[in-house]
Amino acid sequence: MRIGIDIMGGDYAPDESIKGVKLYLENTSAPAELYLFGDEQTAISLLERYEAPSGNVRIIHTTQCIDMHESPTRALKEKPDSSISRGFQMLSGDEIDAFISAGNTGAMLVGTLFSIKAIEGVIRPAISTLVPKINGSTGLLLDVGLNADCKPEQLNQFAIMGTVYAQLILGIDNPLTALINVGEEEGKGNLLCQAAYPLLKSNRHIRFYGNVEGRHILTHEADVLVCEGFTGNVILKLAESFYDISRRRNIHDEYFDRFNFENYGGTPVLGVTKPIIIGHGISRAKAFMNMILLAQQMIEKRVMEKMKEELS
Amino acid sequence: MRIGIDIMGGDYAPDESIKGVKLYLENTSAPAELYLFGDEQTAISLLERYEAPSGNVRIIHTTQCIDMHESPTRALKEKPDSSISRGFQMLSGDEIDAFISAGNTGAMLVGTLFSIKAIEGVIRPAISTLVPKINGSTGLLLDVGLNADCKPEQLNQFAIMGTVYAQLILGIDNPLTALINVGEEEGKGNLLCQAAYPLLKSNRHIRFYGNVEGRHILTHEADVLVCEGFTGNVILKLAESFYDISRRRNIHDEYFDRFNFENYGGTPVLGVTKPIIIGHGISRAKAFMNMILLAQQMIEKRVMEKMKEELS
Repeated sequence: MRIGIDIMGGDYAPDESIKGVKLYLENTSAPAELYLFGDEQTAISLLERYEAPSGNVRIIHTTQCIDMHESPTRALKEKPDSSISRGFQMLSGDEIDAFISAGNTGAMLVGTLFSIKAIEGVIRPAISTLVPKINGSTGLLLDVGLNADCKPEQLNQFAIMGTVYAQLILGIDNPLTALINVGEEEGKGNLLCQAAYPLLKSNRHIRFYGNVEGRHILTHEADVLVCEGFTGNVILKLAESFYDISRRRNIHDEYFDRFNFENYGGTPVLGVTKPIIIGHGISRAKAFMNMILLAQQMIEKRVMEKMKEELS
Repeated sequence: MRIGIDIMGGDYAPDESIKGVKLYLENTSAPAELYLFGDEQTAISLLERYEAPSGNVRIIHTTQCIDMHESPTRALKEKPDSSISRGFQMLSGDEIDAFISAGNTGAMLVGTLFSIKAIEGVIRPAISTLVPKINGSTGLLLDVGLNADCKPEQLNQFAIMGTVYAQLILGIDNPLTALINVGEEEGKGNLLCQAAYPLLKSNRHIRFYGNVEGRHILTHEADVLVCEGFTGNVILKLAESFYDISRRRNIHDEYFDRFNFENYGGTPVLGVTKPIIIGHGISRAKAFMNMILLAQQMIEKRVMEKMKEELS
């Protein structure tokens, strides 16, 4: 198993990405082969400085870097030797099995959409976020930004992809799916929700609860929450800002602390044939380790294969 | 000036609605005439019990009640002598100038849409919520639920209605409007936002900032935040649930406490020719008083007339 990591991406890269590699290698009994994309000399010296085990590491030397604020499409085109571009080249050439970056999110999304195949039958991939529930469990919300406009059938596919992910990665036996809406009764909502509801209701690959409202996102028992990527993105960023505000105001609370993204690593793109994991710009070592572990788990537990089965 | 109040609507009605009436009458130098819709005997005995001044009060005896969970359209049709139905009858007959209820929200919305005229040129009315900003100011978010599907021109109208409300009611001189979106750059977002952006940009009745994301809702300087009612409703209810969770977890914080809706009273319907104010089901005396004060202010400051001017 070969997992590619962009060591140049993220506010605290390359130091923290290399420290994450070390953490992973030291804490994993059967580690994957790690392909580090970035400047070779930097990688070598940091691996030495942090005394990372080097047996499972290969460095793919790249000479360019995509900055956080560059236009994704142009950057991918004009910087073919950047760590992100090279990662996608090797991923699409089957030279690696997964790719991780905490760099330019847009470039990761554009790279995903244009380099990697969607799972057969998937209209469009989606990105998800984990939702800390007030009852102690962890749910999954998708899409959170790849699909600002959706067809009803896409929400139906998100429900299947989310269910498989919740089963295999979150370890939830028989996940319950809900549709985010503006009212609880069947028939409520915008045209998209009105059309998606009957699809979800008759979908035998999922266990469908029905509609939930904004006030249920953190409080309802449903494990998989589906919506189009516009609303999902606003939910995600509003929730993140609540967490940021609570930190800035020195509020310390066990539940609020679960919104700290570092606990989760990164956001996997769902619906593609290989794990692609997009890290938060402010990822540190622990987040990088968790992203590598997540990619490994997704491969070992055959998440993509299972999604393909359920979607066909 | 004649303000109608449904004294039977709300979890703590009629006690708290009558106590709100008393608070209003005792704290207002030139009070409006209050028309109380509900059971006459109950109203009389509660007014006596709470020793409310009775000079400015008229009771409109009604014999029916719309429960919180009744189907709005059916209830309004089958209960013509309910406090909500009678309120709308007198509002549309020009017998009162404003109407307030903390009862069945759906019935209030349906009543609004079918009994009261929209301001000339308004495609559809909207409902708004106040947004406590981290910088200490208070913004306005609309629509929060009346229009789950919107045309671009509707968002443009929300911006105008929100700007007038922010000027006249929130006392903000030259309000800044932003479009809620999934990215900051022009051209980002779903089809609706892409089409609404140029309309907002060239709208000379507002001061347009551009796009803001979910993480800016509580943190950005923009005073008026516009979005369709689906996303707006999810934002409102998610924010309310954050507040509820913080209370349940015994988090006491000056900023978080500003999310307590009681401070604001209720939600005015914007874009109609007369103030209609929808209270939260759990409204108590203070919220009722604030709703009456808001209706009075909207009339005195000629909010509807100014909206009509700006929209034409």
